[in-house]
Amino acid sequence: MRLTFDEIKNEIQRAFMKYGLSEEKAEICARIHTESTYDGIYSHGVNRVARFVSYIQKGWVDVNADPVLERDMGAIRIYNGNLGPGVLNALYGADRAMELADQYGIGMVGLKNTTHWMRGGTYGLRVAQKGYVGIMWTNTEACMPPWGAKECRLGNNPFVMACPGPDGGPAVLMDMAMSQYAYGKLQVTRLAGKKLPFPGGYDKDGNLTDDPGAIEDSMRILPIGYWKGSAFAFMLDILGSVLTDGVGAADLDAQTKGSCGGCSQVMIVIDPKKTTTAENMADTVKRAIEYLKSAEPAEHSGGVRAPGEGILQFHKDHDENGIYVDDSVWAEIQAL
Amino acid sequence: MRLTFDEIKNEIQRAFMKYGLSEEKAEICARIHTESTYDGIYSHGVNRVARFVSYIQKGWVDVNADPVLERDMGAIRIYNGNLGPGVLNALYGADRAMELADQYGIGMVGLKNTTHWMRGGTYGLRVAQKGYVGIMWTNTEACMPPWGAKECRLGNNPFVMACPGPDGGPAVLMDMAMSQYAYGKLQVTRLAGKKLPFPGGYDKDGNLTDDPGAIEDSMRILPIGYWKGSAFAFMLDILGSVLTDGVGAADLDAQTKGSCGGCSQVMIVIDPKKTTTAENMADTVKRAIEYLKSAEPAEHSGGVRAPGEGILQFHKDHDENGIYVDDSVWAEIQAL
Repeated sequence: MRLTFDEIKNEIQRAFMKYGLSEEKAEICARIHTESTYDGIYSHGVNRVARFVSYIQKGWVDVNADPVLERDMGAIRIYNGNLGPGVLNALYGADRAMELADQYGIGMVGLKNTTHWMRGGTYGLRVAQKGYVGIMWTNTEACMPPWGAKECRLGNNPFVMACPGPDGGPAVLMDMAMSQYAYGKLQVTRLAGKKLPFPGGYDKDGNLTDDPGAIEDSMRILPIGYWKGSAFAFMLDILGSVLTDGVGAADLDAQTKGSCGGCSQVMIVIDPKKTTTAENMADTVKRAIEYLKSAEPAEHSGGVRAPGEGILQFHKDHDENGIYVDDSVWAEIQAL
Repeated sequence: MRLTFDEIKNEIQRAFMKYGLSEEKAEICARIHTESTYDGIYSHGVNRVARFVSYIQKGWVDVNADPVLERDMGAIRIYNGNLGPGVLNALYGADRAMELADQYGIGMVGLKNTTHWMRGGTYGLRVAQKGYVGIMWTNTEACMPPWGAKECRLGNNPFVMACPGPDGGPAVLMDMAMSQYAYGKLQVTRLAGKKLPFPGGYDKDGNLTDDPGAIEDSMRILPIGYWKGSAFAFMLDILGSVLTDGVGAADLDAQTKGSCGGCSQVMIVIDPKKTTTAENMADTVKRAIEYLKSAEPAEHSGGVRAPGEGILQFHKDHDENGIYVDDSVWAEIQAL
């Protein structure tokens, strides 16, 4: 179905208030879920609302908790998220990191013991739209085998880099997890009776396969770049815990407070006004995008897109036709 | 052949001094090339010596140039590398970034207009061995097509993350470029008459292939994770220039001062003593590595390695048998 921004936001806010969030906190969380949906990131927008509520019910998210400052040293602040709503904690962390960047040029917030931030790109866009560069990640429970192993020991940790866009253009945003495909993509592809565009993992016998169901069965999803994404996911896990005084996959797997329950997030924010002039920056970003897009398209390709540019197509469609929400997902939210 | 550390270092130092480096600068550069070789990174160790000399001869590296501070704002410093030797500039930048981290907890050095830093891991190891966390990258000239294109517009930009190792253990180090395989790997595999372990790019007709020669011909190497590595490479390029007041691939391609001539490097260094206790850190790193390695090995796998652990095998071999240097590479250095 197609709905307006406010129809979606108001319904999510209603549900969140019913399960204990204050009117203000429910409004913010509902807006973020709706914005992600508007940007086309359905998986971490409307599609995650019911799961968030279930986490509240299980006691894995404390709707009344706020982040508490534990360490304040120069351009670094460490907060304990106290298992509060991950979206609120992460917004708070991103805002504090921008304040540190105002003061020191670069700032880092480490957020420990927090919960699922939903879409990592939310926080990258937040700082980029205010003129900052962001480098952010979260660690998560293990759901991916390291290179050379059968068993899951790595989180599918998302890594975000964001930069203000050229004048009038959208922010440049990369928000990528470490697996070639998300489990959601495997499910959607299997239900459609299709194969993956490229091999996405191993079957139970250790054969690389593009059959999504075989990978769901084995739980042997493939890191991007094979051994490279495996190493990258591990670095994000270990630096996530070291830089926040928090925990990583080993402990998250033992705690079992749902996806990302108790996880650690790092937000490094830089003020590019301290590194270059506004003119240089606008020119650099514009020229880099133009150069990227000047490449001759490959066979069967629609051409090259800058990171984050795909959002614009969703905005156009959603502005013209209303925001898409899966019928069953909407019914699920209404039933909350 | 097999040589001692000092035999290699002294010969490289002799060559570098012949081409204009001071005794001290030549010693440092020679030591870094030798250390990379000792660590098994031949491609960026001894194998790059002759190319570095050729860059001096072409005027692409100024042996007398030193980095000059251009901006000094809080925890950020921007240096102009003045096309000096990339290794010396990058060592200088890493040391300044550690000083900033001492003062502010986190520090960033932006190094513009510099030259090839050889092995990125050199600088990650340097800070990690002194107890710091490092996040570093360089941008480069384009040698890889963006996702959806035939023509090269992306640098094969290396990205480094490093963390102090557990007590007595090696640093945890990821040093990865954005392509699935380096051109050097394609060449070596082709000369051996072999196929790549996994598809590494496209042939001239746009078919994904594991034939290294076909990829060398088309120059269509594959980014790690297809569209993901493409976006990542672009972010490293654009943030490289924005965060250093420097230039990216568009300008590097126009300048044509060899590989990385005039490039931009970002070094973010964090002092984990400001984010956690020494005990927590040692425990966290140790447990993360143990957890990673506890996974049941996959079929035909020698088990899981922590990032950076591969260096130890090279040390063992090189300590027992001498450091391996290709005969023709050694003859090339001796002839300089």
